Amino acid sequence: MQNIQSYIKEHKNRFINELIELLKIPSISADSAYISDVLKTAESIKISLEKAGCETVEICETNGFPIVFGEKTINKNLPTILVYGHYDVQPADPIELWTSPPFEPVIKKTDSHPEGAIFARGACDDKGQMYMHVKALEFMTSTNQLPCNVKFMIEGEEEVGSKNLNEFVKNNRKKLKNDVILISDTGMIANDIPSITTGLRGLSYVEVEITGPNRDLHSGLYGGAVANPINILTKMIASLHDENNHITIPGFYDAVEELSKTERSEMAKAPFSLENYQKALNIDSVYGEKGYTTNERNSIRPTLDVNGIWGGYTGEGAKTVIASKAYAKISMRLVPHQDWEEITQLFKNHFESIAPKSVKVKVTPHHGGQGYVTPIDSTGYQAASKAYQKTFEKTPIPQRSGGSIPIVALFEKELNSKTILMGFGLDSDAIHSPNEHFGIFNYLKGIETIPYFYKYFTELSK
Amino acid sequence: MQNIQSYIKEHKNRFINELIELLKIPSISADSAYISDVLKTAESIKISLEKAGCETVEICETNGFPIVFGEKTINKNLPTILVYGHYDVQPADPIELWTSPPFEPVIKKTDSHPEGAIFARGACDDKGQMYMHVKALEFMTSTNQLPCNVKFMIEGEEEVGSKNLNEFVKNNRKKLKNDVILISDTGMIANDIPSITTGLRGLSYVEVEITGPNRDLHSGLYGGAVANPINILTKMIASLHDENNHITIPGFYDAVEELSKTERSEMAKAPFSLENYQKALNIDSVYGEKGYTTNERNSIRPTLDVNGIWGGYTGEGAKTVIASKAYAKISMRLVPHQDWEEITQLFKNHFESIAPKSVKVKVTPHHGGQGYVTPIDSTGYQAASKAYQKTFEKTPIPQRSGGSIPIVALFEKELNSKTILMGFGLDSDAIHSPNEHFGIFNYLKGIETIPYFYKYFTELSK
Repeated sequence: MQNIQSYIKEHKNRFINELIELLKIPSISADSAYISDVLKTAESIKISLEKAGCETVEICETNGFPIVFGEKTINKNLPTILVYGHYDVQPADPIELWTSPPFEPVIKKTDSHPEGAIFARGACDDKGQMYMHVKALEFMTSTNQLPCNVKFMIEGEEEVGSKNLNEFVKNNRKKLKNDVILISDTGMIANDIPSITTGLRGLSYVEVEITGPNRDLHSGLYGGAVANPINILTKMIASLHDENNHITIPGFYDAVEELSKTERSEMAKAPFSLENYQKALNIDSVYGEKGYTTNERNSIRPTLDVNGIWGGYTGEGAKTVIASKAYAKISMRLVPHQDWEEITQLFKNHFESIAPKSVKVKVTPHHGGQGYVTPIDSTGYQAASKAYQKTFEKTPIPQRSGGSIPIVALFEKELNSKTILMGFGLDSDAIHSPNEHFGIFNYLKGIETIPYFYKYFTELSK
Repeated sequence: MQNIQSYIKEHKNRFINELIELLKIPSISADSAYISDVLKTAESIKISLEKAGCETVEICETNGFPIVFGEKTINKNLPTILVYGHYDVQPADPIELWTSPPFEPVIKKTDSHPEGAIFARGACDDKGQMYMHVKALEFMTSTNQLPCNVKFMIEGEEEVGSKNLNEFVKNNRKKLKNDVILISDTGMIANDIPSITTGLRGLSYVEVEITGPNRDLHSGLYGGAVANPINILTKMIASLHDENNHITIPGFYDAVEELSKTERSEMAKAPFSLENYQKALNIDSVYGEKGYTTNERNSIRPTLDVNGIWGGYTGEGAKTVIASKAYAKISMRLVPHQDWEEITQLFKNHFESIAPKSVKVKVTPHHGGQGYVTPIDSTGYQAASKAYQKTFEKTPIPQRSGGSIPIVALFEKELNSKTILMGFGLDSDAIHSPNEHFGIFNYLKGIETIPYFYKYFTELSK
């Protein structure tokens, strides 16, 4: 890839400013108040892809938010890379914890990002990482160095479970035909320790509702005599973990892939400081499943977390009330071989079975997806590894991630091709949290590394 | 009491309309958005008391909302009755469950109130019941039948724990000097089964905060590896009751008054249908402490209820987040001899002790009060009993209530006089709930019964 560093140096400010403009649009797919912003973002992606050199770009309508599809074919006999990303973002709350407004991007230096980072919702997840691919394409087309064919599929519902992508993929197998899928929606260990994500956890997300009395009651007149839905909900949720923090849902672990001693000791080689980890989160101690390390707990083991809980009086002051209803949003992270629909059913059956007959319980499945593993001997992984060696001058470490990109398993099933997860974010980039940011170094390094993946993948595919 | 029935008949519509005007003011003391409405309500009470025949009425400032004090002395040698009530109301939420706006009173018939009931927040608790005393005074003064001296003390902070009443009472012992205290802020069994509340539960109300990581985290990257404050909070709250629904806080039951078999069988005589109770609440089963009946559970036994819980993402859709903090509002109803401040301390010590070291816990006491028992052989109780016999033509049943009026214990301590709880509301009046209401029959019957209490108390005090 000739002149790539000089090209990036020359266009650096424009690359940054274009991303900042994109980050100003609050494309929150989970909140219907932002529908027009999400649609506006799709339009802006379309224009960017056209400018970057795609021959055809279309906004494909779905039952939800549209999918932006673009492609450039230079030679039918050459391999085709399908780039996937998403233009929607997480909600920004709790808004009061942001040090600058989530949709007014600013560049600030941090310990991990001495060269500065862009602070905004979506900076890292996934607008910034997705846009690296657009700029990498721009470089390759404008310098006539695109070595193969490329397709882009950028969706707007990843943060709400890719509701409509499934159907789109099934109905467009031919259009999406490819030799490898490339995604940057994960992280790496550190700016001087490149890593490639080889495993993802699956997900099952449900909402539960407990109903006790048919109306809110005075806790003095009824307290102690009727089931309090909030007390019951806490009892039911608490019972989902035993004293060793194993999940108590019958059958939950049946399909779990147990790693060998060798694999676990390989994993253990990844540099990790428990002290720094705890310090970064300001916690005195970690907490999790007995018999596993922190890195195992958040990658190769399934989990169950309450993501939200509410009920009764939560306003200012005091109200002596027994609420009629209590609610919780609960998600389970799954590991390879656990089927998310089966786990969702196991949860539903179990949760309903443990409710005392003094309350009614309703379990509503939200969304989910399967886990995934990328074989490190695949052509795609080898090409990615070489690309990192070229730009970071280090061999990247293969790493299992605790996160979920449900559609990766879908791609393998429907499109029959492997996905390579070239993530350039850091764990400390606070994705899904207040003050999300993405390092300038990481953004530009991604733009530099991606073209080499194209180059080596094309060469290794011969 | 001559012509009382004809007087009530003649002025019935005005009595109802005056109350409706009072109910239109949203005097929610727990929410600072309503400060001016609460103050406006105090003004309106002052005017009502003056019209009703009080010689002097003053609005006594406190560090919070003012206390309206009025009096009429006819003869220093005659006994003095101190009427206590409150003009503040509970918050109206959940607002969407009201069939008519909470501060736009309307009269509707119900099964328990075939003659109609006024629907509005505060209709029963306590504006309606307090206003009965104002109208009863009006009758006695305008017909020259007031048999003794009377004082009114109407506060505006009862629903937030009477924060400033304590100091006011301590600083005004002489001004408040009385022979008996009369309160209508409780209920009776049914319109044809009059009852007088002889026992009240104490209260300890606390708020708890659990802090895990210093920021919201992505549940995929951190799930299973760090303590989730919501999961921890549910575990901690669940552990506060054992499998028999006994409260597990060490020392919690030490001071609890255990009733004798005889007392319990006396209580059991009060008419009660478990079937109707469950039907009215639309529950398949009651739930509570093992070894006690429903009526015992909500009157002679202490309880612990979560009144509100919140944390994480509670908005539309799904957010895969691990919250940094989780909160709950928890209240304990106490029985005679349990000291609320001691119980609050026991809770705090215990709750802090059961927190795993992976989280930080903060317990903030809100407010509280002691339980109380009225001896049925006291002059006040005897006078009340005779009054009910006169107007209901039935002897009222002495009944323990599960509710708390913390200031009753305060009155006994500071003013050294007994309190008589002449409540005319019904359990089904939905106080603290959406669609609170107060029966027209109950309102007028209260106005009719109160003057007889004055009469008999004066006679029995000779």
